[in-house]
Amino acid sequence: MSVAGGAAWRVSHQRRIEYDLVKAPDLFDPGNPALLSIGRVRDGRRFVVVDEQIARHHGQRIDAYFAAHGISARIVRFAGGEASKTADAWLDLVRNLDAFPIHRRDEPIIAIGGGVLTDVVGFVAGSYRRSVPHIKVPTTLMGYVDASVGIKTGINFNDNKNRLGSFEPPCRVLLDHTLLRTLPRRHLLNGVCEIIKLAVIRDVALFMQLEACGAASVAAAFQDAAGGEILDRAIAGMLEELQPNLFEDELERRVDFGHTFSYGLEARHGEHLLHGEAVLLDILVSCLVARARGLLSAAETARIFGLVERLGIEPDFALLDVDLVWHSLLDRVEHRNGLQRVPLPRGLGACVFANDINRQEVASAITALNQGMAAANDRNDQH
Amino acid sequence: MSVAGGAAWRVSHQRRIEYDLVKAPDLFDPGNPALLSIGRVRDGRRFVVVDEQIARHHGQRIDAYFAAHGISARIVRFAGGEASKTADAWLDLVRNLDAFPIHRRDEPIIAIGGGVLTDVVGFVAGSYRRSVPHIKVPTTLMGYVDASVGIKTGINFNDNKNRLGSFEPPCRVLLDHTLLRTLPRRHLLNGVCEIIKLAVIRDVALFMQLEACGAASVAAAFQDAAGGEILDRAIAGMLEELQPNLFEDELERRVDFGHTFSYGLEARHGEHLLHGEAVLLDILVSCLVARARGLLSAAETARIFGLVERLGIEPDFALLDVDLVWHSLLDRVEHRNGLQRVPLPRGLGACVFANDINRQEVASAITALNQGMAAANDRNDQH
Repeated sequence: MSVAGGAAWRVSHQRRIEYDLVKAPDLFDPGNPALLSIGRVRDGRRFVVVDEQIARHHGQRIDAYFAAHGISARIVRFAGGEASKTADAWLDLVRNLDAFPIHRRDEPIIAIGGGVLTDVVGFVAGSYRRSVPHIKVPTTLMGYVDASVGIKTGINFNDNKNRLGSFEPPCRVLLDHTLLRTLPRRHLLNGVCEIIKLAVIRDVALFMQLEACGAASVAAAFQDAAGGEILDRAIAGMLEELQPNLFEDELERRVDFGHTFSYGLEARHGEHLLHGEAVLLDILVSCLVARARGLLSAAETARIFGLVERLGIEPDFALLDVDLVWHSLLDRVEHRNGLQRVPLPRGLGACVFANDINRQEVASAITALNQGMAAANDRNDQH
Repeated sequence: MSVAGGAAWRVSHQRRIEYDLVKAPDLFDPGNPALLSIGRVRDGRRFVVVDEQIARHHGQRIDAYFAAHGISARIVRFAGGEASKTADAWLDLVRNLDAFPIHRRDEPIIAIGGGVLTDVVGFVAGSYRRSVPHIKVPTTLMGYVDASVGIKTGINFNDNKNRLGSFEPPCRVLLDHTLLRTLPRRHLLNGVCEIIKLAVIRDVALFMQLEACGAASVAAAFQDAAGGEILDRAIAGMLEELQPNLFEDELERRVDFGHTFSYGLEARHGEHLLHGEAVLLDILVSCLVARARGLLSAAETARIFGLVERLGIEPDFALLDVDLVWHSLLDRVEHRNGLQRVPLPRGLGACVFANDINRQEVASAITALNQGMAAANDRNDQH
């Protein structure tokens, strides 16, 4: 920085971002210190936002936990689901927090819930007094392997998904896999779709783990050893993708696989379509586009559709309206600064980025999916 | 980062923040490339938010500037002033931007206005798609030497000033001092209060410049050479304070001088009290607290009050309600993580941080100011 007198000054600053994801099973056991391992305990206060379902199962234990440690906790219940991801919900939390209140630095907000909850509470933390610390405790599989892992926060606005938000690193992510035990099967499969994404686009070994043990792990709500290995591998893979590009300086992101056409699907059908369900529809469209371009062989395509079937997922192809999906891509072009940058698999476990996908390719893929032909055809093709 | 299998993963990332403040007089001259020096020009779009007063003086030139460069510009007029610093105003801008729209990276938002405008538009940029670039063009003295220099953005919420916001580095700050030419005297003095702040707390040479040339520079709307030197020195000093602590990791900030008691004053009187006016009231309370503690001599105190008088500023001491001001300090304690951390001058040009200011000290200072005794008494004392 020049000190004075010139025609310009340069501001230059290095900011270090660091946070840990820590396995902390039985988080609400009063003997487990993890939930209070960051921040002031003596005379401490905590603003805690808990998913309604989790509160139903664990509310008393959570109350007791903070009471046992002498913490003055304001525990706010929050309904999960896309419909809660609004500016109003976010501002309600801010008002609630403001009335509590907390110190700016040593009384982290604690977010206990699924991806929607941690996204909204993360935005509260990111915007309150220009940022206060927060801890994320994912309670859904989607949160566990995806939403909690990175630093994105957001709310939907103006009929667009995540139109407002921030990059806000948590001060810690606490992973308690036992919380997944009570998840409905549909919500387990919701998270599995993000694991499929990682497997197809970057990790053939993870794909094989899913083929071998995925169905059993879903049945065991990922409480089994094989399920634990799948979770570990998914988190590690996600982190390898995110860490060098935490603020998305690079717009070609492999983890955007499944996140191009899904965007519009969620904006229109978000009330009854889960994020992972939309992502899987996008993945399958993308795979058929890749197949038509010769990026995937018939056998590889069949393996992907076969895995989806084996896991018992039944995507609702009827939601795939060509107009909707095409306009979703057009919005992503603004988001990706003028280029499509659509990740397409190139074989299993690798990917390329396409900038020249045309509407007809997308329409053909959707037609094939809607005719229920894709999987069957490809399966026959390979013989 | 451990790759897999352990009980924890660490995410570690270095983020480089860099931006320039560039002098760019006659910014709206079509031959001046500065306004389009960042981002795509060919087929480019710009979302431009312009202060209403500036639009009245320069609106046609601004329109013509973008037209001359073939830029598709959406120019939105925005009323400055504290009353515009609302969530509604911010969301209106987001809706407007969303309907335009812009690329995420190479079509920076341009904010042309005072501190309120650049704070609100900065928050738009910080929260839209989790951050898009923005350029700040300060058009008030307050913006020029203070609001535009750093990376804070914000809106008022829930009756609290800047309760929501972000740290959002601009991609550039363009300084056109000729825009200050049409500022009303009251708005010039508003910015001068922040310069007084810097002078008292860190820069005795700047204090002497103000003593020697401040009044003339105000009369010349800082278009004179001496005024230019004062502006340069103020910006350089501000940057020296901000740069090492851009994200306020250190909560003892010398630039918070004048920003403890002012907070509540603005929350209550913001509609007719300018930011700098509130800051100056805070400065004078703080100086009398410092005087009572023996941190300032009678002569130094008299010089400070003398400078204010010489500059023709007439602070409205009647606004200083003890309750209001004391509660303002209490809120700042939350903001400063449990300690007062109030900067007090220690002689001219240096400062200490107090954590033990009591209500009586504040009340005594206010009583003295209200009795109009402070300046006169101290001036007599020194003889």
